[in-house]
Amino acid sequence: MINAIKVAENEGADIICFSELATCGYPPRDFLEFDDFIHLAEDSIEVLKNHSHQVAIVVGSPSRNPVIEGKDLYNSAYFLYQGEVLYIQHKTLLPTYDIFDEYRYFEPASEYGIVEFKGKKIALTICEDIWNLGNENPLYTVCPLDHMMPYDPDFIINISASPFSFSKAESRTDVIRANVHAYKLPMFYINHVGAQTEIIFDGGSVIMSPDGTVYEELDYFEEIIKTYDLNEVIAGQTPVLQPKNKITEIHDALILGIRDYFGKLGFSKAVLGLSGGIDSAVTAVLAARALGPENIRVLLMPSQFSSDHSVQDAIKLSENQGIQYDIVPIKDIYEAFMKELHSIFKDLPFNVTEENIQARIRGTLNMAISNKFGHILLNTSNKSEMAVGYGTLYGDLAGGLSVIGDVYKTEVFELARYINKDKEVIPENTIIKPPSAELRPNQKDTDSLPEYEELDPILFEYIENRTDPADIIAMGHDEKLVRRILRLVNINEFKRHQTAPVLRVSRKAFGMGRRMPIVGKYLS
Amino acid sequence: MINAIKVAENEGADIICFSELATCGYPPRDFLEFDDFIHLAEDSIEVLKNHSHQVAIVVGSPSRNPVIEGKDLYNSAYFLYQGEVLYIQHKTLLPTYDIFDEYRYFEPASEYGIVEFKGKKIALTICEDIWNLGNENPLYTVCPLDHMMPYDPDFIINISASPFSFSKAESRTDVIRANVHAYKLPMFYINHVGAQTEIIFDGGSVIMSPDGTVYEELDYFEEIIKTYDLNEVIAGQTPVLQPKNKITEIHDALILGIRDYFGKLGFSKAVLGLSGGIDSAVTAVLAARALGPENIRVLLMPSQFSSDHSVQDAIKLSENQGIQYDIVPIKDIYEAFMKELHSIFKDLPFNVTEENIQARIRGTLNMAISNKFGHILLNTSNKSEMAVGYGTLYGDLAGGLSVIGDVYKTEVFELARYINKDKEVIPENTIIKPPSAELRPNQKDTDSLPEYEELDPILFEYIENRTDPADIIAMGHDEKLVRRILRLVNINEFKRHQTAPVLRVSRKAFGMGRRMPIVGKYLS
Repeated sequence: MINAIKVAENEGADIICFSELATCGYPPRDFLEFDDFIHLAEDSIEVLKNHSHQVAIVVGSPSRNPVIEGKDLYNSAYFLYQGEVLYIQHKTLLPTYDIFDEYRYFEPASEYGIVEFKGKKIALTICEDIWNLGNENPLYTVCPLDHMMPYDPDFIINISASPFSFSKAESRTDVIRANVHAYKLPMFYINHVGAQTEIIFDGGSVIMSPDGTVYEELDYFEEIIKTYDLNEVIAGQTPVLQPKNKITEIHDALILGIRDYFGKLGFSKAVLGLSGGIDSAVTAVLAARALGPENIRVLLMPSQFSSDHSVQDAIKLSENQGIQYDIVPIKDIYEAFMKELHSIFKDLPFNVTEENIQARIRGTLNMAISNKFGHILLNTSNKSEMAVGYGTLYGDLAGGLSVIGDVYKTEVFELARYINKDKEVIPENTIIKPPSAELRPNQKDTDSLPEYEELDPILFEYIENRTDPADIIAMGHDEKLVRRILRLVNINEFKRHQTAPVLRVSRKAFGMGRRMPIVGKYLS
Repeated sequence: MINAIKVAENEGADIICFSELATCGYPPRDFLEFDDFIHLAEDSIEVLKNHSHQVAIVVGSPSRNPVIEGKDLYNSAYFLYQGEVLYIQHKTLLPTYDIFDEYRYFEPASEYGIVEFKGKKIALTICEDIWNLGNENPLYTVCPLDHMMPYDPDFIINISASPFSFSKAESRTDVIRANVHAYKLPMFYINHVGAQTEIIFDGGSVIMSPDGTVYEELDYFEEIIKTYDLNEVIAGQTPVLQPKNKITEIHDALILGIRDYFGKLGFSKAVLGLSGGIDSAVTAVLAARALGPENIRVLLMPSQFSSDHSVQDAIKLSENQGIQYDIVPIKDIYEAFMKELHSIFKDLPFNVTEENIQARIRGTLNMAISNKFGHILLNTSNKSEMAVGYGTLYGDLAGGLSVIGDVYKTEVFELARYINKDKEVIPENTIIKPPSAELRPNQKDTDSLPEYEELDPILFEYIENRTDPADIIAMGHDEKLVRRILRLVNINEFKRHQTAPVLRVSRKAFGMGRRMPIVGKYLS
């Protein structure tokens, strides 16, 4: 932030804006309950304040509520200038749904004002504060900008930490435009960029002219410092917009998600198991693009049930990508397990137990590389599998980060096609062969699941839309299938409870935004 | 509930009370976002309503907010009588901290009244509603009973789902008494009993006479139906109180937690690894008491690093308890792993990697029993280990339920002593030998951790009290040690993210009540 302030100074800027809760990161979660942590955020404000010479600083940070009643903190926008705090505006609308827990920590604002700076009046808002225009949002009863308009502001600043989902950028621009139209003021919408564990922030900050045209929409998934002239923004120009494409955005979001997870934990290297299937292939390519192929190491772990092409496809991908691979057959280890278990299992038939042992041997081998060489194991399960529990806990469900756990299998195919758009990165055979876990002879995913083209729309209705089972059936899906699938989703909550954080790219991902009982009896 | 209504009818009762959100279970979490789920709760109210003949029914259930603005639901107390809903009182004070997310779902009440029934006026309150007497609770600004007093009620009913923690029963009685004193009315405080995944409700319902003496405090951890005469409650009697003892309560709470986790998931049998150490010994005894020793199966999995006494101690405990045990040595499987990994590891020295492989072999063997025979694997890690990350993910951290993950190691010793109070259930040697993971020759926990007597108070200050590091040091703990321990707690969040639900017995357990960033840099 100090470096950015210097850049702004050199460019002759009057104000530099950082995003919501930028001092402590968003979301800080229960760190906010530690007094010591709040002190550190306050210290950051002190430091920033003293770095304001020519340039004023707008920055988000927690602040303390001096009133005993109510929550202890506010989610605040500070306006700092030349060693002073000129103004603090608290956030009013506190999202408390999906991944958001803001009312767990913050008291809503009840007072409003503006900042006067160099002859201009500035309305400061924070993220959700602009999302109840005309009181149209059923979640809220206050529209903060309505309370600022009596002070006759010249422009609006909104500092946000608005998480990415592939359908969101469009609605975000619409909301900014609706505010700009309503108040006839230009708006500077500054959004956080970067990933915080599972939550990805895409940036895409928007400068909007008072006539509602986008003056500029900044690149997604990149930190950018750029200076604007208020008069030019008011005068307007031909809109500068980012292209919007679901699969491109997911691809780029996942790469940022991987990069920041590793970077923020101080790791640079990833390991994963490469099965020859599409999920691990896509994950490996995304990881190589995020961390560099030289930082990716893969294990090929064939068993007696693996098909010949699996190893070949995995080798081909590794060579295409310049990724280091090792082949570690699991047959002997598997037999060592079965030998020790024989006195207990006796002649009980082969079943899911033996399938899981294979998966767990692979999990253990992957983790051995992780432990020995300091790699983080990447989980390669997709959202369809995670939904219905098609995966082995501590086996293929192991890993420090789930890369494609919010991407349905049908979307994984789209991602693979997108990755291959210019040349064959992922072997064609990996994409066209029928999905299989290869844990028993001639196994196919469709032995126990419907085709993914049939499964995914049912899951989407239930997970993203929370549609009633009866209504999903009424859409034309087979009743028995729907009931079986929804039951599988609910009874497998115990598995999802124990899996890695899932990079969130949809509006309803598994993890902190979807909080389900494990022993709940609903549809189970 | 229908059976209970029949009992109440036979006893000639006028009113039967069930607890908060009793129709759908507490906490229903995001099930509340499913319209279909709310319909099912509404259907339950219909069914109950039609089972009210002589006896009126007070029951908690979600109800819909007819106003578009605000949250979609209320957390409500229904008063049902002879096929009619006589009255609905919504909950006002919505806990949104620790394990609670009520403002995620519910709109607070803004209207208050009383029920008139058989010549009496009844004030209906829900759980937290009585916890802001005299507006003394800084979290809230409304005291619901103040708004009911103008209607001149004759007595107060409070239906609760107040989770157990070992220090809570005392403060609960105090709160009830303060309300009774303030309003000079008798109170019937009905608390939920049973466990919902990790959250344990202890019951301990309280009937209080208007002079503030406890008319009766009901047993903890048991479902009870009991009838009271209002006039007798008003007249008062010698207090009937439950004994309060921290370790007894934890012991009983964990047994209920295990029993309900299994019962609600439709399982009856548990498996766990018995190391000869105190954690698995205590867990095995608690499991045997919850499910019956005939439903417990243990694996003894010695390695070349296991001491002789480990297997002997484990066998002795199994025999004491009448638990089925099998001995499965892991040496050959371990060597099979090392053989396959040799081409990758070459001559790199033995380190934590090889320790983890042993732990993961044991995890895989335990899960093999779980999968083959339908047992749930119990996790045996204690709170001290979980805090500092002293455990192997997918190894000893595996399991469907963490039994003692909210019990510090020093408290595990107290539990063992309590279990042994009448006779030696847990072999004395298990209790007195120095704790060791036995993953390398002559390993002791104190090789990498301080003595638990030194560690646990530091952890308690940081986790339960969220004390500033500087203040923990000022209490007389070594600065370097404190900084190292707190850092270990924070950097091991990734492990806790992937472990089983932890039965909650303290006021700050790992899990849904403690929401920490994984990549957050605080103290890491």
